[in-house]
Amino acid sequence: MASITRAMIRLPTSSIAFRAASRRSFTTSSPSILTRTRPSSRILLDKSNLQPNFRRTYADVAPVKKPRRFRFFKFFWRLTYISIIGGTAYLAYGVYEQKHPDDQFEPDPTKKNLVILGTGWGAVSLLKKLDTENYNVIVISPRNYFLFTPLLPSCTTGTVEHRSIMEPIRSILRHKKAAVKYYEAEATKIDPERKVVAIDDNSDIKGASNKTEVSYDMLVVSVGAENATFGIPGVREHSCFLKEIGDAQQIRKKIMDCVETATFKDQTPEEVERLLHMVVVGGGPTGVEFAGELQDFFDQDIKKWVPEISDKFKVTLIEALPNVLPMFSKQLIDYTESTFKEEKITIMTKTAVKKVTDKTVEAEYTGPDGKKTMQVMPYGLLVWATGNAVRPVVRDLMSQIPAQKDSRRGLAVNEYLVVQGTKDIWATGDCAVAGYAPTAQVASQEGAFLARLFNTMAKSEAIEQQIHDLSSSLNLQPGNTAEIAKEIETHERQLRRIKDIKPFHYTHQGSLAYIGSERAVADVSWLNGNFATGGGLTYLFWRSAYLSMCFSTRNRVLVVLDWLKSKAFGRDVSRE
Amino acid sequence: MASITRAMIRLPTSSIAFRAASRRSFTTSSPSILTRTRPSSRILLDKSNLQPNFRRTYADVAPVKKPRRFRFFKFFWRLTYISIIGGTAYLAYGVYEQKHPDDQFEPDPTKKNLVILGTGWGAVSLLKKLDTENYNVIVISPRNYFLFTPLLPSCTTGTVEHRSIMEPIRSILRHKKAAVKYYEAEATKIDPERKVVAIDDNSDIKGASNKTEVSYDMLVVSVGAENATFGIPGVREHSCFLKEIGDAQQIRKKIMDCVETATFKDQTPEEVERLLHMVVVGGGPTGVEFAGELQDFFDQDIKKWVPEISDKFKVTLIEALPNVLPMFSKQLIDYTESTFKEEKITIMTKTAVKKVTDKTVEAEYTGPDGKKTMQVMPYGLLVWATGNAVRPVVRDLMSQIPAQKDSRRGLAVNEYLVVQGTKDIWATGDCAVAGYAPTAQVASQEGAFLARLFNTMAKSEAIEQQIHDLSSSLNLQPGNTAEIAKEIETHERQLRRIKDIKPFHYTHQGSLAYIGSERAVADVSWLNGNFATGGGLTYLFWRSAYLSMCFSTRNRVLVVLDWLKSKAFGRDVSRE
Repeated sequence: MASITRAMIRLPTSSIAFRAASRRSFTTSSPSILTRTRPSSRILLDKSNLQPNFRRTYADVAPVKKPRRFRFFKFFWRLTYISIIGGTAYLAYGVYEQKHPDDQFEPDPTKKNLVILGTGWGAVSLLKKLDTENYNVIVISPRNYFLFTPLLPSCTTGTVEHRSIMEPIRSILRHKKAAVKYYEAEATKIDPERKVVAIDDNSDIKGASNKTEVSYDMLVVSVGAENATFGIPGVREHSCFLKEIGDAQQIRKKIMDCVETATFKDQTPEEVERLLHMVVVGGGPTGVEFAGELQDFFDQDIKKWVPEISDKFKVTLIEALPNVLPMFSKQLIDYTESTFKEEKITIMTKTAVKKVTDKTVEAEYTGPDGKKTMQVMPYGLLVWATGNAVRPVVRDLMSQIPAQKDSRRGLAVNEYLVVQGTKDIWATGDCAVAGYAPTAQVASQEGAFLARLFNTMAKSEAIEQQIHDLSSSLNLQPGNTAEIAKEIETHERQLRRIKDIKPFHYTHQGSLAYIGSERAVADVSWLNGNFATGGGLTYLFWRSAYLSMCFSTRNRVLVVLDWLKSKAFGRDVSRE
Repeated sequence: MASITRAMIRLPTSSIAFRAASRRSFTTSSPSILTRTRPSSRILLDKSNLQPNFRRTYADVAPVKKPRRFRFFKFFWRLTYISIIGGTAYLAYGVYEQKHPDDQFEPDPTKKNLVILGTGWGAVSLLKKLDTENYNVIVISPRNYFLFTPLLPSCTTGTVEHRSIMEPIRSILRHKKAAVKYYEAEATKIDPERKVVAIDDNSDIKGASNKTEVSYDMLVVSVGAENATFGIPGVREHSCFLKEIGDAQQIRKKIMDCVETATFKDQTPEEVERLLHMVVVGGGPTGVEFAGELQDFFDQDIKKWVPEISDKFKVTLIEALPNVLPMFSKQLIDYTESTFKEEKITIMTKTAVKKVTDKTVEAEYTGPDGKKTMQVMPYGLLVWATGNAVRPVVRDLMSQIPAQKDSRRGLAVNEYLVVQGTKDIWATGDCAVAGYAPTAQVASQEGAFLARLFNTMAKSEAIEQQIHDLSSSLNLQPGNTAEIAKEIETHERQLRRIKDIKPFHYTHQGSLAYIGSERAVADVSWLNGNFATGGGLTYLFWRSAYLSMCFSTRNRVLVVLDWLKSKAFGRDVSRE
């Protein structure tokens, strides 16, 4: 919105500037007209010189050169305001379009029921590309918004506000051509025999109808995964996860709670040290980004407002593998580790957490000689940023399908993402096992693939119906057969072309991670190779990449505003 | 921040425009120089006319008039950009100053301990004006931020985000000259005998030290009040209050929960009607503003994204008194009631809630004939926006002071806000009974009064000390007595002048309330009279008044951005 007002303020400005500029160009151009009207004198001068390359001799008057700099400046200035006007108009159009959806029509009730479970990366990417007029689409999820998870670590410290990375599913669905039903409920059981999903409204406010069944013809399971604690005692009770908005808000509150408790009257130095020790478990992008954001928050904000604890804040990152960010190339891992050293974040690799109590983490370090040493670390805040576990509803479905009995980490799917052992259930994202890493990128590509698949299926079914109709008319009226046969042939060719869908293939675009102190690392696929880079410029790339990946124009504007806000005012240190 | 970037983008723009403007003014001024160098011809012309009033005769050539319109336009344009530059620079300076506090010095430990309980209107207004170098100031509150309560109803629907109306107490204290201690804790007991306050860290994260005592020489009780339910059964269990940020967030979540539950599969029409019936109890400004915001949210946003329930949303406002907004003049009450009628908000006055269950409100209406009728209303969300009760810590303190035994609604204070029956305890705001309404305006003026009082006390004590020192020196060295006596006299005169503090007097500035549909009502004190107005222009006044009352530049910028955001993108319908 700010940008719109800016446009509104700017429009008269620019038009005035434009008038001024054109007036100026008129006056400055007059001398050039004059010189052009007297070409003869110039030629005479050249002729008297008799130098073919028109070099100036010492007797000639130096030609008055017009300052080129100003011309460039003028051009640059025009370019700037034209692109500002253009950009603002484009933005305003995007915002307007999003705010004013067209009327929707109700889909034909005789069409197939396509039920989609979830509102995460897989489901939303499917919904974005799906032609909803071909099906009766029903979306079921306990979370009525899509969450742009890559920016979740930024939410824990207030660099970005949580609502800026949420997009209401109602708004996403309202922009589809045909209406889509949405139920805010959790799918508790899938019955592939009866083809129904049991759903349960598990929010605070319940109506008379709060448990029911939804029948499907086609089902997409995109429910994601839940947090895994690997059976380590104390993790579920004492640590914070970092998967949903609520988690980020809880962490944000707890960081400030630790700081305020550390400054409580008569707190002992050991206790202050414990309270200001933040432990992050998991050296993947989430853990690394969170550790970086945490240190930023402390260095840039908390230190300033609560100076009495300025030298006592400490972040430790624990990872069981030999290094952090295993999906990145060696040089970037080294760069991350050296940056963390500068930022005073302690990295403990080859260290496995064994037990968590309310005030300590017990972790076992495996030395290069294989010797194991146990370490007990007192902590103030523990964030568990590792591990995916299968959700109960998925585990239950797997137990009903014999073909799934060897699958451990989720629903095994074939190359068309069909759940093995079923005919009309598909799965995407973290709840599907397709041989890829459990990332947003994979889920998003899987969702888009399913949308193409379903759109194609609807098209081919329509053509099959047409062929069927033509064939029956062929039998009924024996005249005109050649023409009808030809038409059938055309349709069949069309059908073959459509039906030739290639199986799902994942294209890795690259990996990105923010590592604190306005630096990032990026491992991007580039012309069949890899492009690895880290530093401040990569941070700008990280920002623009994430920005372009945001779901909507609204998200994009809000995230940019948040970045500017946290830059101008600092992050908020209120505990709320 | 957006404004800063705007400034940064704008600066070169303006300087170019400035250059262009100055160039233009140079060329346009040349004719006027020319006319001024030829005054004789003009005078001659006038003389030949022999008309004393210089009127033009028909033979004269019409003088060429320069187009005035452009001149005005130029002037206006210059004024605009100069004020934009000025405004932005002012804003940027404000933001810079807030972000870069000066170094603080530790106050002299021999000075008196001034303990302030609370971070609400009274406490923060006191802190803002207090010269902290005169005391050892200690602030104690379980809430580490100041909340701009007048905009809290806007937070329930997302017109304004909650962090925009919060100002961290750490930032407020960090800007004082001398350091101020802050403990995030709740005061559980005040002992006026031993002069100590017992405090308790009741947040989630506790340190080894979490309960202790703070001793005071002077104590200010600004803890506010808690919600009163008047003993009506079911209110505390089933309704939402609207006093703190957490309340607003809960309401925001519940509104969307009601909407989502109403669209759950197979919900009966009666149940949909119940779920979408929002009942507000309390016809004061909070209740009225909340009802208006709620209806706005529904009309402007929910309706669009969830079209299937568009005709089923209903807001009812219940008030026990004969009319809403009792502090406003009759015509504004009528205007509010007619506006609510237009907005389809039902007002039920002379109606007292008797019982609340999880799904119904039972209320008793007293007719004009005194006849009472009971009504049972099913509801989806119930907001309790009425009534203040004394907090336990205040009640406990009252029970210890014999002079307070007749006070029911809080600490009875004298005209200097000293708690009656004590010598060194002051009280402000909703926990003090000074004969004024429990409003932010009263609390704020009381806090400012105490700041003046304490600053004066410190000054007079310093002068008393000087007089004391001079008197002792008078006894020691009997020379120079006349001069010292004179100096003492000067000091004493100064002391009398300072000590002559007038008692607290409340100046009512006026009342404001938003009533929905971009209309507001205002009853403002104006030149010993009242100025009552309602409507769309008043809404702009309401906005600018609230904006100017915000605590900091940061708050102001954030609130404006939020207003623009909710205007451009609509309010967020995610349930979070």
